[in-house]
Amino acid sequence: MPQDLTPGQLLARGACRCLVEHGFACVTELVPKPGLRVDVMALGRKGEIWVVECKSGRADFTSDHKWRGYLDYADRFFWAVDADFPAEILPADTGLIRADRFGGEIARMAPELRLAPARRKAVTQGFARTAALRLQGRTDPGLPLAPGPAGVTFSP
Amino acid sequence: MPQDLTPGQLLARGACRCLVEHGFACVTELVPKPGLRVDVMALGRKGEIWVVECKSGRADFTSDHKWRGYLDYADRFFWAVDADFPAEILPADTGLIRADRFGGEIARMAPELRLAPARRKAVTQGFARTAALRLQGRTDPGLPLAPGPAGVTFSP
Repeated sequence: MPQDLTPGQLLARGACRCLVEHGFACVTELVPKPGLRVDVMALGRKGEIWVVECKSGRADFTSDHKWRGYLDYADRFFWAVDADFPAEILPADTGLIRADRFGGEIARMAPELRLAPARRKAVTQGFARTAALRLQGRTDPGLPLAPGPAGVTFSP
Repeated sequence: MPQDLTPGQLLARGACRCLVEHGFACVTELVPKPGLRVDVMALGRKGEIWVVECKSGRADFTSDHKWRGYLDYADRFFWAVDADFPAEILPADTGLIRADRFGGEIARMAPELRLAPARRKAVTQGFARTAALRLQGRTDPGLPLAPGPAGVTFSP
């Protein structure tokens, strides 16, 4: 077990496993614009972009005043919460993934609000560059320009 | 030193370091369509796509009858060869990176043949999904669907 992961990161791991089962590829802790970091961004086989925010408890959700900003970077937006989380406090027009550290399932599909083409292109490129630079950093520790964990910032 | 890398993979490592210095993010051994595997694909900050084929010697180049197929998946195409490689046998209308296991430099810029938008979109998505799935496989060995080293095939 990875003992060093936070409750939110463990939820993210389970949510990512769930998304892979649905044909998505995931990147965690992605920064689509300065000051905005999404827990999970997922890219589907047809280029669809989903964002998942992981909430370890009620306080974690009620203290989040940024989440509506994530809607601008996804075709569908989901929360990932554990079995004990009071789902009734989450907005009805968002998706829901019930997860734990081992996996998860989509409990409620999110409505689709398709990104504009220019935004989709920028987000896909940022996703691609972040994933590739992180992978490079892992396969070649001697890389001259070591990308930080926050990866690449991309906008618009 | 990674003793288990082939001469071509060591050239790829050096070429990738060079490309990172030029602002690109790289994925190695990418399969853009069945039967076609590129040694290095690189994605720039403006979405530009470069492909690099690594040749460890003259025979490695003369036996490659597929390389013109790579031109359909890149804005610019380069060879990566070591200092001893006879560069005069390479086509003049291709780029050249002189590399070794530690790094490299662009010795001749490749001409630009820009991809059509639909192809660029498909290639960028495939690059993104391949990088993300490989990264996921490394960060979460317990992933239910372990992506193989060949990654994702994407076309057109």
